[in-house]
Amino acid sequence: MLLITGASGFIGRHLCYSLLREKIPFICLTRDSNNEFFKSNSISTIPANLDAPLMVHQINKAQVSGIVHLATYFVAEHRCADINQLLDTNIKFGCQLLEIAKTLDISWFLNTGTFWQHYDGDQYNPVNLYAATKQAFEDIARYYAITHELRFCTLKLCDTYGPGDTRRKIFNLWESIAKTGEVLEMSPGNQLVDIVHVDTVVEAFLKLIKMLESEAFCKKNMETYYVSSGEEITLRDLANKYQEANNVTLNIKWGAKPYRKREVMKPKCIGERVIVDKK
Amino acid sequence: MLLITGASGFIGRHLCYSLLREKIPFICLTRDSNNEFFKSNSISTIPANLDAPLMVHQINKAQVSGIVHLATYFVAEHRCADINQLLDTNIKFGCQLLEIAKTLDISWFLNTGTFWQHYDGDQYNPVNLYAATKQAFEDIARYYAITHELRFCTLKLCDTYGPGDTRRKIFNLWESIAKTGEVLEMSPGNQLVDIVHVDTVVEAFLKLIKMLESEAFCKKNMETYYVSSGEEITLRDLANKYQEANNVTLNIKWGAKPYRKREVMKPKCIGERVIVDKK
Repeated sequence: MLLITGASGFIGRHLCYSLLREKIPFICLTRDSNNEFFKSNSISTIPANLDAPLMVHQINKAQVSGIVHLATYFVAEHRCADINQLLDTNIKFGCQLLEIAKTLDISWFLNTGTFWQHYDGDQYNPVNLYAATKQAFEDIARYYAITHELRFCTLKLCDTYGPGDTRRKIFNLWESIAKTGEVLEMSPGNQLVDIVHVDTVVEAFLKLIKMLESEAFCKKNMETYYVSSGEEITLRDLANKYQEANNVTLNIKWGAKPYRKREVMKPKCIGERVIVDKK
Repeated sequence: MLLITGASGFIGRHLCYSLLREKIPFICLTRDSNNEFFKSNSISTIPANLDAPLMVHQINKAQVSGIVHLATYFVAEHRCADINQLLDTNIKFGCQLLEIAKTLDISWFLNTGTFWQHYDGDQYNPVNLYAATKQAFEDIARYYAITHELRFCTLKLCDTYGPGDTRRKIFNLWESIAKTGEVLEMSPGNQLVDIVHVDTVVEAFLKLIKMLESEAFCKKNMETYYVSSGEEITLRDLANKYQEANNVTLNIKWGAKPYRKREVMKPKCIGERVIVDKK
């Protein structure tokens, strides 16, 4: 039995659909048990706001062998008021999960990271505070991995897209201006992007889940994997492709805005790329 | 003007005495403004439980150039219930300070770490969750150091001792059994310890404070320094020395207890040792 966090998010929902299709049993730890998504798909949940002993009891009853940790709090450029939630969601909640994994002798933990931990392709160079909290959580996890023989690894993601994405991401912005004809001011648009379809991301998770289920404890630990489209395209070319594919015109004023501070001009990651079969 | 956290702790108090002696102006950020220590030494404080904007305002008024961050929550072997406080004190509070440093363009930040981040002398291998939170905080700090030209460095400590130490440390235990004649069960006692007098620790802080005040922003950043006695002694030999120096007898039953899990048999650190003049 898998325990999934962040299941009501964009990637989480797609992962759940795949797990349902493949008949892999799972249960979701969520602050949002009443979410229609869980009900309409008859997915079992455990409330994440239970007292620790009660939560441990429920997870124990479910006989969980591994945790897939997708819950995250994302802000590209944080403000002071975001710090609490960034640290509570991205570090503390994860640490509580690790403690539960230790208590219940759960075999493995699959964490989600970001290319943004590796600005310029560096071993560690965070693009923003969000990326720094992801790295900090890996430091906490190393303690549990070393001292409690927990197999821990991280799958790092870059940009993702796909159906049902409600995040304020580029394709949603473009879809909106394609309809209204509104002018969108953007940066010069020469940054390369590595944008991955959510199906590919989910396949990568499934591949790692199967690997972890079959060899939970081995000599390897604390590895980093990443998922990539294998292609890089400038944001401008991506806009052109979008216009062709959807037969629309985007009124983008390129260069009307400067690049973001620490704009990623060429996405890079470290670790081992997870290659999945294209369907 | 320096801003000191953790000033009412063992090392903090000794640092404050030295700053007072050397007439280096400082103010303390503390949850414990009513502590007799501050009153009896006429030390100015800012309450650490103020709302963020008010705290920023007060620190701004004080014209702080650098922060010495000694506040910490220590547990050798944590229990589940310690996680909140470990993460809140050792990561979140520090992050809030870094955010204040960014907002107010404070030049430098002197952090306190531990040899225990480097079990076996490894680049990063935490002895316990406490050490892991210290490492996680350095990852958070790297974001601020890189993106806001904050000069950040860490002074790592091992065992410390000296007058007025109220922590449950070895000399206090020995003092107690020397008086009562009680039998103390200990591990086999062959672990090497590197135990440093608090005066040496304070001298190391002062040396780094002076360095940071004179060259706050330079090409170096995120360096690690450490303080060591320069000597290693087994715990058994330390007990012998203690008996001779104090002319007492300690009833220690060596080997009655096993070594702690991940007992540090030989303390090691990485970084640059801070050498201070012996007085």
